[in-house]
Amino acid sequence: MKLDDAVISTINWNDDGLIPAIVQDAQTRDILMMAYMNADSLLRTVESGVAVFWSRRRQELWRKGATSGNTQRVVEIRVDCDADTLLLMVEPAGPACHTFEQSCFFRTLEQFAAEPKRY
Amino acid sequence: MKLDDAVISTINWNDDGLIPAIVQDAQTRDILMMAYMNADSLLRTVESGVAVFWSRRRQELWRKGATSGNTQRVVEIRVDCDADTLLLMVEPAGPACHTFEQSCFFRTLEQFAAEPKRY
Repeated sequence: MKLDDAVISTINWNDDGLIPAIVQDAQTRDILMMAYMNADSLLRTVESGVAVFWSRRRQELWRKGATSGNTQRVVEIRVDCDADTLLLMVEPAGPACHTFEQSCFFRTLEQFAAEPKRY
Repeated sequence: MKLDDAVISTINWNDDGLIPAIVQDAQTRDILMMAYMNADSLLRTVESGVAVFWSRRRQELWRKGATSGNTQRVVEIRVDCDADTLLLMVEPAGPACHTFEQSCFFRTLEQFAAEPKRY
């Protein structure tokens, strides 16, 4: 697949040049996490077949699992109607979350309301 | 469920006071769309049991389906680890997308690359 300038410029990047990418387990269909991509991370993801994001906190490319080993093999990438959100269907090599939970969405709003906490 | 000030202030709102909300069909587990919520839309969603978002374009509360009839009954709301993304599990009354597709993610990146277009 070729991501030429027309493709890259039609993607609806936000003011920071990023697009949110929802990550779904292709097999269980659980939502694992959401992260952000810039054009470079999208190109590297397509080229390598594993998820590469842009770390907003560290302001650098972030090959998911580079440290933890919990890489995400990308089975399919989907684009929404107005091209401002991506959906990555992946096969994860391990937990998606830095808390070691399979999914970052491991708690309900009820549980969060009972113990409001950021991990 | 009570969403008191501690809960609202622990949610990791972005600089515009919004949080992205992924919407997943609770039955098919397809990802339907992504939209944004402010505190008021989250409170109204919890109170009413149907999805209410914040329209960034129109800068107003947006009760999903208010015009189209394609409301989304909220089965569960989940919060991610760092509380900067929500996941709504819903029962949709009809298509989520303004194109009348069931899901806004109706095309692959390959299809988008072949015909780069925003709907």
